[in-house]
Amino acid sequence: MTAIDFWFSIGSTYSYLTVMRLGGVARDRGVSFTWRSFNVRHIMVEQNNVPFKGKPVKEAYMWRDIERRAPVHGLAPTLPAPYPCPELPYANQVATLAAQEGWLEDYARATYRNWFERGQPNGEEPNLSNSLAAIGQDPERVTRAAQSATIRDALARETRTAQDLGVFGSPTFAVGGELFWGDDRLDDAIAWARHGRLG
Amino acid sequence: MTAIDFWFSIGSTYSYLTVMRLGGVARDRGVSFTWRSFNVRHIMVEQNNVPFKGKPVKEAYMWRDIERRAPVHGLAPTLPAPYPCPELPYANQVATLAAQEGWLEDYARATYRNWFERGQPNGEEPNLSNSLAAIGQDPERVTRAAQSATIRDALARETRTAQDLGVFGSPTFAVGGELFWGDDRLDDAIAWARHGRLG
Repeated sequence: MTAIDFWFSIGSTYSYLTVMRLGGVARDRGVSFTWRSFNVRHIMVEQNNVPFKGKPVKEAYMWRDIERRAPVHGLAPTLPAPYPCPELPYANQVATLAAQEGWLEDYARATYRNWFERGQPNGEEPNLSNSLAAIGQDPERVTRAAQSATIRDALARETRTAQDLGVFGSPTFAVGGELFWGDDRLDDAIAWARHGRLG
Repeated sequence: MTAIDFWFSIGSTYSYLTVMRLGGVARDRGVSFTWRSFNVRHIMVEQNNVPFKGKPVKEAYMWRDIERRAPVHGLAPTLPAPYPCPELPYANQVATLAAQEGWLEDYARATYRNWFERGQPNGEEPNLSNSLAAIGQDPERVTRAAQSATIRDALARETRTAQDLGVFGSPTFAVGGELFWGDDRLDDAIAWARHGRLG
């Protein structure tokens, strides 16, 4: 079975549905995902493809769509969550450090929980300290380390890698050269990884 | 079971997947859809929500996504189809007449087939005459009648009704006050019509 890269950006709304359930999907279906955080806003602005800003009708639909789908996955968010979050880049710098140190999944779930279930914007306080403390990481150490040029550069490189692959939104599942965009394409990605086709 | 309104615009790419299979879905699953054509471009321009123009990366993904999903429904399009089609409004004026006269489903399938499988842009020749002849309609009568002020007004009214409901894209399934946007939300719409919830 082909490996699946899970490209996501903390700050993406639909990625909440994926981040919160992907661990369970991996276990239940015997699929392995490589979690890769990037800065989707950078790509969206460059490609003139900002999904909701200035589009109130579409944004209202998005919240309702997430609200309807969340219970299917056992999730109970308080919606709408704060959006957009200004510190999206920094939230993903923390994620980049977390990937290097092996605790990205835990951090992603914790920060989305605080954002979507407790109304705390990602990438800033109190979300950062609460999320890091909840997963046994030292907020002071992490928030300092995540500001380093090394981490900024690493996030920029991952964002460039995603963009070079053709990623333009979050979440995106990459299976070999095939991209599957959207939480609702998770089953397609798994089918493709298994059989090289859908259905 | 609540009725489902199928709002679509000839000219929408993803609507190809829905138009071509909806008759079969209705029969196989015992669901009734009311087909309602509108001018999605009018709403998209007004809401600054044009999906693909000037977004080549996202557009390329859209064609690949449709290409992968089409065989699941037994479809074999030649992609990319001509896009965007300049005569989208007129294609939907013909659809408006067709709805009044009871042959909208047949026309929609025929014109999408000629557009997606034979490379003929919708709303212009030879698509119009080929599609109408294939379903036993007189091209000369229909193309004249579809240009009338009555039909233009009827399409504008349907477009306004869709917009007032919150429709911003095609296809959209409306179940009571709930909207489900996208070919990939068809199962959600059916579940909602049956049970008032998803999953």
